[in-house]
This record gives sequence, C-alpha cells and structure tokens, in this order.
Amino acid sequence: MAYEPRHMKWWGWGNEDVQFDSKAHPGFWPYAKSVLEIETDDFDQPHWMLDAINVPEGRVDEHFLTKLRSFLAPTQICEDKKERVIHAYGKGFRDLFRLRRGLANAAPDLIVYPQSEREVCLTLRSAADRDVVVIPFGGGSNISGCLERMDAGRVTISLDMRRMRRVLEVDAHSCTARIESGIFGPDLEQQLSRQGLTLGHFPDSFLHSTLGGWIATRSAGMQSDKYGKIEDMVLAVRMVTTEGVLTTRTVPKSSNGIDANHICIGSEGTLGVITEATMRVHPRPELRVVSGYLFPDFESGIAAMHECMRQECMPAMARLNDPDKTALSFAFRPPASLISQAAGSLFKTYLRAKGFMLPSACLMLTAVEGRQNEVVRRLSQAEAIYQRCGAVSMGEDAGKSFEATKFDFPHIRDFLLDRNVTTDVSETSTVWNNILPLYRGTMEVLRASILDSGVRPWTGCHISHTYQSGASVYFTFGFKQQSGYAMQQYLRVKRAAQQSFIDHGATLSHHHAVGTEHLPWLAADISPLGVQTVTAIKNALDPANIMNPGRLQPSSNPFDQWMHLSQPLG
Amino acid sequence: MAYEPRHMKWWGWGNEDVQFDSKAHPGFWPYAKSVLEIETDDFDQPHWMLDAINVPEGRVDEHFLTKLRSFLAPTQICEDKKERVIHAYGKGFRDLFRLRRGLANAAPDLIVYPQSEREVCLTLRSAADRDVVVIPFGGGSNISGCLERMDAGRVTISLDMRRMRRVLEVDAHSCTARIESGIFGPDLEQQLSRQGLTLGHFPDSFLHSTLGGWIATRSAGMQSDKYGKIEDMVLAVRMVTTEGVLTTRTVPKSSNGIDANHICIGSEGTLGVITEATMRVHPRPELRVVSGYLFPDFESGIAAMHECMRQECMPAMARLNDPDKTALSFAFRPPASLISQAAGSLFKTYLRAKGFMLPSACLMLTAVEGRQNEVVRRLSQAEAIYQRCGAVSMGEDAGKSFEATKFDFPHIRDFLLDRNVTTDVSETSTVWNNILPLYRGTMEVLRASILDSGVRPWTGCHISHTYQSGASVYFTFGFKQQSGYAMQQYLRVKRAAQQSFIDHGATLSHHHAVGTEHLPWLAADISPLGVQTVTAIKNALDPANIMNPGRLQPSSNPFDQWMHLSQPLG
Repeated sequence: MAYEPRHMKWWGWGNEDVQFDSKAHPGFWPYAKSVLEIETDDFDQPHWMLDAINVPEGRVDEHFLTKLRSFLAPTQICEDKKERVIHAYGKGFRDLFRLRRGLANAAPDLIVYPQSEREVCLTLRSAADRDVVVIPFGGGSNISGCLERMDAGRVTISLDMRRMRRVLEVDAHSCTARIESGIFGPDLEQQLSRQGLTLGHFPDSFLHSTLGGWIATRSAGMQSDKYGKIEDMVLAVRMVTTEGVLTTRTVPKSSNGIDANHICIGSEGTLGVITEATMRVHPRPELRVVSGYLFPDFESGIAAMHECMRQECMPAMARLNDPDKTALSFAFRPPASLISQAAGSLFKTYLRAKGFMLPSACLMLTAVEGRQNEVVRRLSQAEAIYQRCGAVSMGEDAGKSFEATKFDFPHIRDFLLDRNVTTDVSETSTVWNNILPLYRGTMEVLRASILDSGVRPWTGCHISHTYQSGASVYFTFGFKQQSGYAMQQYLRVKRAAQQSFIDHGATLSHHHAVGTEHLPWLAADISPLGVQTVTAIKNALDPANIMNPGRLQPSSNPFDQWMHLSQPLG
Repeated sequence: MAYEPRHMKWWGWGNEDVQFDSKAHPGFWPYAKSVLEIETDDFDQPHWMLDAINVPEGRVDEHFLTKLRSFLAPTQICEDKKERVIHAYGKGFRDLFRLRRGLANAAPDLIVYPQSEREVCLTLRSAADRDVVVIPFGGGSNISGCLERMDAGRVTISLDMRRMRRVLEVDAHSCTARIESGIFGPDLEQQLSRQGLTLGHFPDSFLHSTLGGWIATRSAGMQSDKYGKIEDMVLAVRMVTTEGVLTTRTVPKSSNGIDANHICIGSEGTLGVITEATMRVHPRPELRVVSGYLFPDFESGIAAMHECMRQECMPAMARLNDPDKTALSFAFRPPASLISQAAGSLFKTYLRAKGFMLPSACLMLTAVEGRQNEVVRRLSQAEAIYQRCGAVSMGEDAGKSFEATKFDFPHIRDFLLDRNVTTDVSETSTVWNNILPLYRGTMEVLRASILDSGVRPWTGCHISHTYQSGASVYFTFGFKQQSGYAMQQYLRVKRAAQQSFIDHGATLSHHHAVGTEHLPWLAADISPLGVQTVTAIKNALDPANIMNPGRLQPSSNPFDQWMHLSQPLG
C-alpha cells in the first residue's frame, strides 16, 4: 500500500488515532505512580478542542500571497487554523505544554507545500522580497525547539516539505540513492526496499520525520553503530537559498577545500532548504537478530560495549539501560509476554543465584544485522564478551518485545502530561573514559534540581550509539508538576542537565540539534569564534535573514532569551 | 633514537642524502626509455647550486621584525637564502621545474618557527597589524600548489610549524590523543607506539608531512580503508586566527549545528593555523599481512574490490594497478628479488596456462591488519573473492617488496626530471559505477593531450582508497619534455585530466587539496555558491586577508591565473 504522510496530532506525539495504551502496558502506571509518589488516579480526561486554542490572527501580506499564487496551486497554500497550530511547534516539552494550555503564539501565518525545487526557489525569493520569514518543516518531530518562530514581528510561513518525497535515482551497484528531502522514514524505506536496499536510518522519530529534517539536525538512527550517523551517509546535497542553489557532487570522499556538504548538514533551516540529497544506501540485511541481555550493573555493560568496539564486533544497535531505565523497561513490558515471564520469579531466583543484585541490573538490547555469516560472527564474539562481563542472556524474546514497541516510547509523555507529570530528555556524547563521570555527575544535578522543587525525581539513562572513541549518553527525567510552576520546574531541570554536559566536557546534544533548547550552550561548545563563523555563513547565504531566524545565533544574553520563550507561563 | 625533523632538498623530494637509486631498480630506466621513446643516456648531471637560484631580495618590515623579536628567540626567525628557497614552494611539478631552473620568485621574506600556540597567536596578530602575509608550512610536501605565495606585493612569512610536535595527552582507553600540529608522521607514530597506539595514517608523503598539513588538506593514508581519511579521525581542533582561537570539544559525534571541525578541516591555511588536534587513535595491530595478487584485468580487480566492500572484508589497504601501472611496478622491482623470480618466465608460463593475457594483467597489493582473528577472517574472505574473480596470488613477497619501497616512489620524479621527463599525477574519486567510464575517458584525454605535443604518452592508474559507495582513482602520467615548451606541455595535460574529472562527475581531488593546481575547477565542484560561502568564512576569520591569500578563492578568470603562475616560463 502506498505510503501517505499524515500530520501528527497537534497536542502530542503520533497520529490522532494512536495513543499510549495503558492496558497493553499494565505495569507502567503503577510503576510511575510509585517512583513519582503520585497518589491519585483522578485526573481530568483532556478533550482536545481546536477551538480553545489561541492563535494569533494570520497576517498575510497580500502582495506576497498574490506572488505565491502565481506559481503555486491553491492546494499548496494553507491558512487553516488546525494546520497553523500543527506547524507552530515541534514536540518538545515546552511545545506541548503550551499547546495543551491553548497557546499557539508561534503559529505561522501560512503553510506552503512546495512540490518541486523550482517552487522552493520561487518561494524563498518571494519571501526575501517581502521580508517574510521561512521555517522549513519536515515531520515536525523535533524536540529541541527548531521550529518555533522566534521573530514574532514578521509574517512567517512554514515550508512543509512532505510533498517532495520521491526517490529520484538509485544506483544499486554503487549503493547510492538521490532522494527528495521531504520523504518520511517509512516511505523512504518502502521505496528503497523495492530495490533490495535500505538507508539504515531508524531514529526513534522514524515514523514522523523526514530525510531533510535528519540532515538539517544531524540525526542518529538506532542502527548507527553499523550505518553511521546521518552526516556519514550524505554524499551530496542540494540546498536552495535566496542566493542560489548550493550543490555538491556525488563522490565518496574529496579534498576540495572546506567540505561544502558540512555547511548544509546541521544548518537547522537557517541557511536555506535542503531539497534533495544523494545518500549512501545498503543492501537489505539477510539476517537481523535482536536480543536482550542483563548485566550486573551499568559499569559492566559499558565495559562490554567498549570491548566489542575494540574487538570490531559491535552490533548494529546496542542500547544499554542504567538500572532505573531498566526498571522502566520492565514496567513497560506487555502483559503475559515471554519477557515478563523471563523477568518473573523463576528468572529472578536464577539471577540471584548468579550473584545479581537486581536493583543494579542493567538491560541491554542489541540488534545485529547484515550478511548471515557476518551476523553469526559478530553475535558470537559479542556474546562471549558479554558473558565475560557477567551478562545473562534474555534471549530473542526480549528483542522481539523491543522491536514491537520501539517507536511507541514517545507516546508515554502524552500519557504522563495528561496526569500532570513532566518528562523530557537531554542527550550528549563523550569519550569512553568520561562516560561514568558524566553519568554520575549529571544524575546528581538532575536529581538535585528536581528535588529543589519539592518533588521526587525519576531519572534514567541509556547508552545508545557507540564509536571508536566514545558513545552517546541519553538521560530521561520525570517528575510531578507543581501547579502553576511546571514550566519553571522544567527549565531548572533542563538547564541543570545541559550545564552538566558542558561542565563535563561533553557536547550540547548528540543528535537532537541546537534549536532553542540548547542555544545558550552553543558558544561553550563550538567556541565564540565558531559561533561567529556560523553567523558569517548565515549572513552570506541568507542576507535577508528570512531563514529560521534566531537559530544557531545566541543572543548576547542567551539565558534570558531561553527563559523568555515560555512566557507568559511563568 | 629521538626523531629530528629535517627539511627536504630544495630541488626535489626527500632528504638531501637520499635519492632514487637506479642500481637498486635496474629495470626501471630501460622500461622508461622504452615506453617514452627515449634514445639516449646522455644527460647533463645536474649540480644543485644554491648560488644559482634567483631569489627576490627579502623585504623586511623593520617594525614587524622588532615586534617578532619581542616574543620570539633569534633561532625562531630565519632570513637565510636556503631556507627561503626551501619554503618557496611545495613539491609539485611546477614547483620543482621552476626551482631547477633557478627561479624562486615565491620565496617568502622570512621564516618563523613558533614553539607554542601563544607564539602563533602573537605572530598572526603582528602580521595582521603590518599587512604581512602568513603561509602555514608543515612538511612542504604538498604537490597541488598550496604553499606558493600568490600575492607578490606583500611581505610574506612562511610559518613553519615543525617545532610544535608534542603528543600532549593520550587517553588509551578512549583511543584519543591530543597532538600538536607540526609533528611529522614518523615522530607521531614513534611517540604513539610507546603507548601501544597508532594513528593509522600513512600517506605516501608520510616521512615528510605533518598532522596539521594532513588536516588542512584532507589527506588520505594508505590504510584509509580501515582507519578512514584524516577528516574521519579528527575529534577536536584548535585553530588560531587573527580573530581568536576556534576550538571544539573532544566528543565522538555531535549535533551542535554546522560542524565547526569541518570549517577548519580542508581550510588549506586560508583561515588560520591549526595548532593542535585531538585525534582518534587505535591499538597497534597485532598482525599485519601484506600480499600481492595478479588479476586478469582491471575490470576483474575492481569487481573484486567492490565485492570485498559488500562482504565487509575490505583489507586495510588495497591498491589495484591498471596494466600500465602494473608494468611499471614490475620494472621498479629490486634485482633478484623473489618477486622478480615470480614474475619470471616460469610464473609467466603458469599464468598463460591459466589463460592470463599478460599485457592486461593487473597487480593488486593489499594489507590486512588488526587483531589476529580479524585479520585471518578478512584475508580468507577476501582471497576467496579474489580467486573467484580470477586472481592469482603472488604471495607475501610481493607485499614485502612493496613495504620496503612504498615511500620511495616520489623519488622517481626527480630522477626523470634529471632526464628531461615530466611526470605528475592527478587523482579523484567517484562512485563504483563510474570508475571505468571515468578511467577510460580520462586515459583517452590524457594520452591525446600528451600526443598533441608530439611525444609518446605514458599513463597509468591505480585505485587506492575504497568506500561503501566508490573509490579514489589515481592517474600518473609521464612524457618527454619538448625543449622550451615543457611547462605548456604540463599545463595542457594537467588541465585535460582535471577537466575530465569534472566532466565525468568526479571531484577535483580525493586527497591532494585544491591549492593552485585545482583551483579553476573549484566552482564546478562545490558550486559557485559553495565558493561564495567559503569566501564568507574566510572574510569572517581572516578579515585582513593575510592567511595564504588566493587559495580556495578562484579569480574571475581562473584559467588565466592558473597559466600565469608559471610565467615567465612559457
């Protein structure tokens, strides 16, 4: 069946007809209640009424609109309220929190759906002529505040790229594919699979994000240990700007001066619109084995990952949960599944006999995929290492359970928001030697910052992408909202996490982008001169400053701006 | 024994006491004579007299010199004629051709040897104050014209980085090393090997090039198939500019907007001076096996490389020579070596029995290295593929012969220049499907452009670096010089090769940089808007335009400028 892209619900994650099903995960809410000290089940059932949303009146520059209509069909221009609300934000905590309270101040005035590069060019040129702001929009799944209009004074259009979704050209022998940027993950994989190929990029947002969004934000997929991060997959790009089209050539590597691909990659919509990219693709794996393992503690799991890297047998995916994230995973399991049996009393007895302290046990989920003989080799080498590090195999059932629910996790946040619980994430990367100091230090400040507001913290962490020199470290936190104080709670906690990354020598984000949420730490990350250089690039390619203004350019007082974005929610 | 960096001879490649030894390669000159239709052995033995070199009088700005002396020791400032000649050029054909004719117009006025980042900062600031041009200099091995002063009107210093050569910090667990940029290849490997580590970067220029030079030019080493190109190894950099120091963090991967590392990598000295970098390093391989194979033809060798890539058993190095490069390799072999026996009549008989057409046979040299079990696996998988593609093993002796002479090849050019033969190289990269069309098309124009000048062409090609999506394609050419016309011959041939790359959709260089030699093709490669962006970066970081001016910025008539650089040699 042909794939048709859909908008996510405006009040949360995923399609309107999909939500977190607590019956399918009966252990989850009791676990959340217990760890967050929630004593009631009595929450108002929210009714999401678009009418209740406060959207600023759309300002349309009639000259601009006339111009757009000269090259776009009526179905490509939209001023509908619902669409404006959907395009107002991404899916970060701040975004959803505001929308759920009826605030969509950042709603664009207009949504434009280009169908060709020419239309993108014409739209940008027309926008520059009339000082109209353009915010490129892929799937709208970003959680770092990449999509919010920061310049309230100017007419703003959201340039929704989803109608540019063709795989234009495939070279199966060279394993390259030229692809339009507005294509969603499932559509892309469906089109490539017809030729026996895969991109191998499966971020948690896979169902609701686009190729262009991945490139603009330096996304990472679950199987990045085999296929690389998105920036490793880009061979060539086309990026439309008001100054012309920046194009590069489809070659595996070059020495042509400063790498022009890397000017486009990570540009977060601030320079222009990536209309297509030629990507490295791969034959679809002959075999894929997903398994679960239980390690005695976080330290032994990390040691096992490190050793797999050294012995060149890293799985395509290895997600190691810390003890709290492990407990959450078990609480999340479907009822009566094999994994739940495995986690049941018999298995617990077995683990205790092996000297496992259950509260410190850490679940690792791995996927090994590729040619059959290569899968067998990696798996047997990796399992030998895991065993030496004290792990117990939970078999493929744990893996199957993960596979079945891997894209469902983001739905939990909506479920919890309905129950006045704030949850969000902050993730980073660091070198192997620094993972544990970073982990311990960040956990400490996270918990302290949550406790500060008088509620009990839940914090968890997992390691999800590994490299020769280090890994990503991904923190999740949750806590009860203090009425009238929820946004300030969030800001305090988020700030503590990000500051801890920087204090520990890590980076502001491994794969979620800078956006607004991480902007105050950009100068510390890439140095003030790095920021100046990015600004120079911005000024050269977008002299009219119409492309997603405010991103990648911290103001002179970035924290004020950062706090202010949530006003007047206090 | 502690490593001490030395300058190369000013008239050619390598140390003054090292040259091509034709007795050790008795087959080489007869081969060259035969293929190039050279009928004499009667060449003037050149005597390299520094006195005969025409160097423009050094212009020294006394204020500037006084300023330099305020923070540099007398031994760090040099106005010596020999040093000025050595720093005038790199080692490209144009460079050596001019020097050998007594022309060193591009000699800098002064050489400065900084010993700390502070001294680099102060030098740049002083230079900007006095409008003095600064050209960063590593080993001086560049062959694309990265080092020649293009702006004759301004006082110019060569900033020789070789005294900044410490490995500052090693984290063996994370496999990272923070290293000063002026370190030479052998010194770096010697220092790392004390901790059981290697960078794994072995370009042909290894003995005479530096870390900073590698990064500034996007170098590739022989074992890049395992360790990556230099840009894949950089975790963090420090780059001193007149506007401050651009620094990035030591993390494996990030999503912090436009990648600031990639602003420094490939900047070819035009933005600032890379003073140090934190590099990904590796445990030294337990085992290294170097072997040779003979394929029936170029096509079957390429097919074998492609299949190794698909089966994930690519050696760390795989160099496939085309038939002419294969013939050259055999002519280059040492006397009475095992390889020569192997290539002897018995072996030939064997090959013919196997259906080999010797004139089409292609030599592939491979190195597999790493952990013992991984080496064994790769080698056996790769050899099975080679066999299926019709290859015959020449055993490890062919490999040993290659290992013994792998850094000697650049000496041949000096030997041939002494005999009025021009040789040079042009290399590029392309996707797998395009390798043969590119190869055939470029060979054709190369030969035609040489024949045009009335001499017999020698052209050869090898594939030396492979990727998931393609490989580098490296052309070597040689021909008799037409007296009084040699530079024009060279320009015609070089231009034909580069234009062919661009016409075939390939890139201007895979690992030799843009420099002056490839500058006319930069806009075709990264698009005019790409060039504009690079210029914007340049203007932001080097507003005084003192850093290696003219590079990465093609003039409005780039070919005129390109031809003009060789004037008045006609």
